Amino acid sequence: MADKIRVTVWGENAHEKVTAETQKLYPDGMHTYIANFLNTQDDIDARTSVLDEPEHGLTEEVLAGTDVLTWWGHIAHGDVDDAIAQRVYEHVVSGMGIICLHSAHFSKIFTKLMGTPCNLKWREVAEREVLWVTRPGHEILQGIEDHFIIDHVEMYGEFFDIPEPDETILISSFEGGEVFRSGCTWRRGAGKVFYFRPGHETYPVFYNENVQKVITNACRWAKPAGPRVISTCESPELGWFLK
Amino acid sequence: MADKIRVTVWGENAHEKVTAETQKLYPDGMHTYIANFLNTQDDIDARTSVLDEPEHGLTEEVLAGTDVLTWWGHIAHGDVDDAIAQRVYEHVVSGMGIICLHSAHFSKIFTKLMGTPCNLKWREVAEREVLWVTRPGHEILQGIEDHFIIDHVEMYGEFFDIPEPDETILISSFEGGEVFRSGCTWRRGAGKVFYFRPGHETYPVFYNENVQKVITNACRWAKPAGPRVISTCESPELGWFLK
Amino acid sequence: MADKIRVTVWGENAHEKVTAETQKLYPDGMHTYIANFLNTQDDIDARTSVLDEPEHGLTEEVLAGTDVLTWWGHIAHGDVDDAIAQRVYEHVVSGMGIICLHSAHFSKIFTKLMGTPCNLKWREVAEREVLWVTRPGHEILQGIEDHFIIDHVEMYGEFFDIPEPDETILISSFEGGEVFRSGCTWRRGAGKVFYFRPGHETYPVFYNENVQKVITNACRWAKPAGPRVISTCESPELGWFLK
Amino acid sequence: MADKIRVTVWGENAHEKVTAETQKLYPDGMHTYIANFLNTQDDIDARTSVLDEPEHGLTEEVLAGTDVLTWWGHIAHGDVDDAIAQRVYEHVVSGMGIICLHSAHFSKIFTKLMGTPCNLKWREVAEREVLWVTRPGHEILQGIEDHFIIDHVEMYGEFFDIPEPDETILISSFEGGEVFRSGCTWRRGAGKVFYFRPGHETYPVFYNENVQKVITNACRWAKPAGPRVISTCESPELGWFLK
Repeated sequence: MADKIRVTVWGENAHEKVTAETQKLYPDGMHTYIANFLNTQDDIDARTSVLDEPEHGLTEEVLAGTDVLTWWGHIAHGDVDDAIAQRVYEHVVSGMGIICLHSAHFSKIFTKLMGTPCNLKWREVAEREVLWVTRPGHEILQGIEDHFIIDHVEMYGEFFDIPEPDETILISSFEGGEVFRSGCTWRRGAGKVFYFRPGHETYPVFYNENVQKVITNACRWAKPAGPRVISTCESPELGWFLK
Repeated sequence: MADKIRVTVWGENAHEKVTAETQKLYPDGMHTYIANFLNTQDDIDARTSVLDEPEHGLTEEVLAGTDVLTWWGHIAHGDVDDAIAQRVYEHVVSGMGIICLHSAHFSKIFTKLMGTPCNLKWREVAEREVLWVTRPGHEILQGIEDHFIIDHVEMYGEFFDIPEPDETILISSFEGGEVFRSGCTWRRGAGKVFYFRPGHETYPVFYNENVQKVITNACRWAKPAGPRVISTCESPELGWFLK
Repeated sequence: MADKIRVTVWGENAHEKVTAETQKLYPDGMHTYIANFLNTQDDIDARTSVLDEPEHGLTEEVLAGTDVLTWWGHIAHGDVDDAIAQRVYEHVVSGMGIICLHSAHFSKIFTKLMGTPCNLKWREVAEREVLWVTRPGHEILQGIEDHFIIDHVEMYGEFFDIPEPDETILISSFEGGEVFRSGCTWRRGAGKVFYFRPGHETYPVFYNENVQKVITNACRWAKPAGPRVISTCESPELGWFLK
Repeated sequence: MADKIRVTVWGENAHEKVTAETQKLYPDGMHTYIANFLNTQDDIDARTSVLDEPEHGLTEEVLAGTDVLTWWGHIAHGDVDDAIAQRVYEHVVSGMGIICLHSAHFSKIFTKLMGTPCNLKWREVAEREVLWVTRPGHEILQGIEDHFIIDHVEMYGEFFDIPEPDETILISSFEGGEVFRSGCTWRRGAGKVFYFRPGHETYPVFYNENVQKVITNACRWAKPAGPRVISTCESPELGWFLK
């Protein structure tokens, strides 16, 4: 059978140290929880890395062995070393898939890949979210029909200051009336980028079966089709390609 | 001063003959109402054409003199002559702007330009719609900040079976919880296409100041930058362009 | 192992009856030649259908059992029955992948999916084409690095009157100096569309190893991720999704 | 008459100090040359700023009074202060248009807006470039029909490591056989971005009438439609928009 998809689940792992509700929901950390549900799949081999590890657990060796990186961060975006963010960026543009979850909209890696501020509206009153499918049949939406509901979430509202997505595949409405482009894809270099809105440190959003399904599918979609491809700046002589 | 934008407001003018509520709201027809608010602008010269006229009021001469065509139809899409739809299409791809309003999603011209079925969900219970800006600063959204509200509308819900828009500039939420991509742009050939969701035969949606603002701006945005450009299929000899 | 990708290779099979050079290059028809190289792959099961068969070999049953349809036509586009083109269209928008090859740019199905005239320049002087990769790492370009060359081709030149592609992955230059967007992708409904320029009835373009590689990869890329998804127009009551 | 478009032409002005050929072609600097041809237009008021000025001539006041910024840099990208690049970025995403010329593909501002490395191939042998129109009728291409030729240029070749453009409006072929996406547009926040390949310090590319035409049109296209729009991250209470 085909090789498994090597997923590295990166977690900031900061709320996990200070927020009681997070500790209760995710005693081993959100990253471990995410890796665990991914590892129930036969075709995925998920490991974790966190901020506190040397090089944030994202050494050149780890990234070279990663097909898809998932990223969750919130209160410690600024603690991510610029050099490590740059290293992740270089792997993405040469082919590593990346899935940015929820508050990762403000991570160094996501804003760098977007080239925009990635601002948005937000509100934490445990309101209901309905995620509507706007690209049925998409690889990332297998098993999702028409819409799904998450009962209690932090709201994110437009204007979400991102570049026009290559594909907008999910749009949310919230009990309060706001809307949000909750599932968006882009290519950057040889790499695929997926932003997925759900996920929070004190609501049990990652427990949601459909949320798990989308993240799992997204790993399959974001997996590079071949080895890393590094773009270069070179100066070939006239007619070189005819030789 | 610059030449005025020559807008042709096309109306099916069918509800106007049979639906009491439409007659009450739009005694001279929706097309006339739309043309009238456009004509309050110094830079616009709007005229009307309707289904019942010879060639649906869309003769070659009328179209050749049209910068932007707005289209409203609902119950009589099938009565539009294929040859006239084809003529409109040829003008769009050679540069004429087109603005398709509300139920024009199912018009011959819109589905032909999209290449998709353009299906959607719908419901008529006079619910509230909030239209959220997803591309601030866009030419079509001048004067619109963040969002605007229409109190009573027919709901349109996703999945709206259109190709990925070049730009999604407005997304609606409805009181019932559905969402919809309510302002979408595409280019087809040399022409610009804008789909705008609001507008209905029995709710006074075209009375809404912001709806009028968006349609007015859209006429400015969709106006061709120059004369018609007709693409061709030709067979030039080797090196022709060096002569 | 996973199920094979079920590919239907559609051929107009018209030049094959009248053009000596075509008969020499493709004694069993271009469609058979294409199916044969696809069938060298373990994961593909390719069959053929041609214009002359009842319903052009594209019965509801055949299409229902097709993951990806490849289309080659040239001198008999007009002989394709509108109802069959419509049937193919319905399968594409509900998930069947379609790969349109070379002169299929003027086929009923391609122009219908595009919503534009699809005009282009052309010239038959057996000139050299270089196809440059503009999206390294793309699924369709696995095994292709930077560029590849076809020694003798019919030239196609811009302006190619298509909607802005979702992705432009190959751009050609020709000996004569023209350029062409030779590899373009779009989504239409739940289906994926790939246009690939190479392929001709009297040049041995389908013999080219890289051309075969791209078409083979494209079958993998265009394969639907799940069963057909049929978009509908329905009128749900208020709050239906909460039940 | 309408207010003029306020263009700031930014020049690195470094070759101008050390390269004899540049001094001969552009005795007052490329920036002055560009501003001069823009100022022949009734609707444009162009001024210049250069690297050596305090804050590179891009003070908050200058940028606040700029509708469109054009950028040319090459050997001194690294000398642009990060804080000034950031200030320019903030003006772009809040609505200021930006036109990046030629070697500005490697400028801090362009790579930041793209989110990709922007690598490309290059060669300086004074070869011929043909720029083919791939979006006839586009605002930026007014006065350009089908193609135009520049006799002696530095070649830029694919793969150009940029995100998929919103619109690819010009594609070049070079005498040597390479191709390049030479005219590309994107939106970032409320601002419009145009990349235009032509322009060089030792070939008289900016003397070319069509190059001047494209840059002039691009200023008109990139002009913001209204005042700056600054996206924010805020936390509105439930139902705030109903008040």
